[in-house]
Amino acid sequence: MPITVKALQKTAPDQPFRVVEIERRDPRENDVVIDIKAAGICHSDIHTIRNEWGEAHFPLTVGHEIAGIVEAVGENVTKFSVGDRVGVGCMVNSCGQCEQCEAGQEQDCLKGNVGTYNSKDVDGTITQGGYAQKVVVDADFVLTIPDSIDFDVAAPLLCAGITTYSPLARWDSGEGKKVAVLGLGGLGHMGVQIAKAQGADVTVLSRSTRKADEAAKLGADRLLATEDDGFFSEHRGEFDLILNTISADIPVDKYLSLLKPHGVMAVVGLPPEAQPLHFGALIGGGKVLTGSNIGGIAETQEMLDFCAEHGIAAVIETIGVDEVDEAYERVVDGKVHFRVVIDTATFEDAEVQA
Amino acid sequence: MPITVKALQKTAPDQPFRVVEIERRDPRENDVVIDIKAAGICHSDIHTIRNEWGEAHFPLTVGHEIAGIVEAVGENVTKFSVGDRVGVGCMVNSCGQCEQCEAGQEQDCLKGNVGTYNSKDVDGTITQGGYAQKVVVDADFVLTIPDSIDFDVAAPLLCAGITTYSPLARWDSGEGKKVAVLGLGGLGHMGVQIAKAQGADVTVLSRSTRKADEAAKLGADRLLATEDDGFFSEHRGEFDLILNTISADIPVDKYLSLLKPHGVMAVVGLPPEAQPLHFGALIGGGKVLTGSNIGGIAETQEMLDFCAEHGIAAVIETIGVDEVDEAYERVVDGKVHFRVVIDTATFEDAEVQA
Repeated sequence: MPITVKALQKTAPDQPFRVVEIERRDPRENDVVIDIKAAGICHSDIHTIRNEWGEAHFPLTVGHEIAGIVEAVGENVTKFSVGDRVGVGCMVNSCGQCEQCEAGQEQDCLKGNVGTYNSKDVDGTITQGGYAQKVVVDADFVLTIPDSIDFDVAAPLLCAGITTYSPLARWDSGEGKKVAVLGLGGLGHMGVQIAKAQGADVTVLSRSTRKADEAAKLGADRLLATEDDGFFSEHRGEFDLILNTISADIPVDKYLSLLKPHGVMAVVGLPPEAQPLHFGALIGGGKVLTGSNIGGIAETQEMLDFCAEHGIAAVIETIGVDEVDEAYERVVDGKVHFRVVIDTATFEDAEVQA
Repeated sequence: MPITVKALQKTAPDQPFRVVEIERRDPRENDVVIDIKAAGICHSDIHTIRNEWGEAHFPLTVGHEIAGIVEAVGENVTKFSVGDRVGVGCMVNSCGQCEQCEAGQEQDCLKGNVGTYNSKDVDGTITQGGYAQKVVVDADFVLTIPDSIDFDVAAPLLCAGITTYSPLARWDSGEGKKVAVLGLGGLGHMGVQIAKAQGADVTVLSRSTRKADEAAKLGADRLLATEDDGFFSEHRGEFDLILNTISADIPVDKYLSLLKPHGVMAVVGLPPEAQPLHFGALIGGGKVLTGSNIGGIAETQEMLDFCAEHGIAAVIETIGVDEVDEAYERVVDGKVHFRVVIDTATFEDAEVQA
C-alpha cells in the first residue's frame, strides 16, 4: 500500500508552497521507509522549483538534505533496521552496473543518477523530495547518521557537506596545505570546517571583512577581503587549493594567479553564464581548474563519519513548514547563516490545503 | 674570452633574419660550450620575434630546440665531457633554491626561470637562442641526447617533446587509457607518438580527415574529424585524457563533454583570447581542465630517454640558414609536417651581413 504523507508542494514556480498530501510508494524489498525529522533548504531547491535550471515537473516537492529515523524496511534490507538514524542526499538511485557505479561514483552513473526530486525514477515516476513527513528510498542510497550528530544539523551534510568534502579530499586538503574557501554561505561554511578538520591552514576569501568573526568561529585561520586594493598581487601564488563555493561570476584568471604551481581551483558553485578563461592562466605553473558534483554513496558515509569524528556539523536555523517561502527569500538574499532546516515535526499541526 | 659565433638575428619584427656575429660569454666554471648541430623552429620563436607576445628585446636570436656536441666544459662540470651529445631546451637557468627548483620544477621557479632567448639572465644580459653555431649554457640546464637519436630529430624534443610528454605523464596516459590529441602539428605529432609508446589507445582529433594517413603513420589508432555532423554527441564521454595542442579558439565546453567522468583536458597551446567556459562542464563528472608548460630538467631527460627507448623522435624537414624567413611563413600557414630544423652546418658558408 502506498503511504500517504503531508508534504510541501508547489504547483508552479510563482505559487507559494502549500501543505498537501502526497503518496510514497509501497516499499519494495530493498526499500527503507524513513520518518523525516529534518529537511535542509539547499539553493538547488530554489533554482529547480523556480525553473531557473529548466522546466521543472510540477506539482513538485523538493528537498535533498534529509535526516530521519527508519520506520520500516523491505524484506531484503539487511543494512538498516527500524529505529536507525539515517539520511538521504541528492540521489536515490543509479544503474548500479556501469563502471562509475561500480567505482562508487554513483553521482556520475553513465545512465544518469536519479535525483532525489524532479527526476525520472527507474519506474518512470517523478521523484519527490524531502520537504515531507516520510520518504521511501532504496537502501543502497540511504546513509547512516552517526549518533553524535543531531538530525537538524546533520541534514545539510547530505548535500553541502559532501559537496565540499569530496573535492577537498580528492585534491589533498590536509596538513601543510594552504586552502582558500571562496564564499562563506551554506557550502562555504562546511568547506571551512572540513578543511580545518583535515589539518589545512584555512583562509576564507570574501568580498569584505564583514564575515571575519563568523569565519573565525568556524575555525578559519583568517579571512581576506578580495575587494581590498592589491589583493590579487599581494596573495599571488599563495594557495595549494581554492574551493570556489559561489555561484556568481568571478575573474577566473585572477583567482588562478593565487595558486601555487600545480595548485587547484575546484568549483562547486554554478554561475549561469560562461566565465572567460585565458589558457595562459592554467599553462604557467600547470594549474588545475576542476569541478565537483556531490560525491558517491560510500564517500558520503565517509564524510558523515569524518564530521562525527571531528565534531563538526552544519550551522543552522530551524523553521516550520509555514516559513519556507520567506526563508527562500533570505537564502537568495544571502541573509542566512548558514543553512535553513525545516523541522518536519511542524507538519503535524499543519492543515492540508485544498 | 667571449666566443664569437655566427647567428641568425633580427633587429626588428618586420625585418628578415640576417647572419651576424654575436658573442657568447666566456665559459664560467659550471658552463658547457655546445657546438650546435641542429636548431628546431618552434612557433614560440615566431610569436616572440614578431612581438606577438609583447615587445621583444632586439636585436634578437631565437631558438630553444638545440642539439649539438660539447666543445668545452668549465672546471666544475663533471656531468659532461668534450664530445658528449647534448641538448638545450626552453630554459637556461633558474634560482635553484626555491621549493619549485628543489622539486625539479625549474620551469615554475618562483623567481622565474631564465628562458633560452629574450630573457634577462642572472648577469643582466639578454639571452640569445639557438639559431647559431654555438651556445654557452650552465651544465644544470644541459640534457644528454641518447646516441640513438640523430641531432636534427632530437632538437624538437627539447620543446615539443617535453611539452607533450609532461602532461601525458602527469595525467596518467598509458595502457587502458583512451587519449585524444587535438591538433596534429609540431606538438601534436609528438603527443601522438609519446601517448602510443606509453601504451594508450590514441585518437587524433582534427577538423577534417585530411591528415588521417599522417596520423596512422605516427601510430594513432584513428583520426576523427571534429567538423563531422554529430561528432560531439557521438563521442560524448569517450576519452580519459585530451591533449589540446592547438593555439586557436575552441569550444571548451564541448570538448569537456568528450571526457569520461574525472577525465582531463590538458592544454599546451595558447590561444590569444579568453575562452568561454561554463563551470557546469567541469562540475558534471568532476572533470579537470589544466595547462602545462614544458617540464623540469629531470623530466626532460626522462623524456629523451623514453623517446630513445621507444625509437621515437620528431618528424622533420631540414633547411639552411638562408631559408628561415620562408619557413616561418609555412609554419604559420600550417604547411609543415611536422617540424622545421635548421642545419647549423650551413652557417659555415654563410656570409656575415653588415
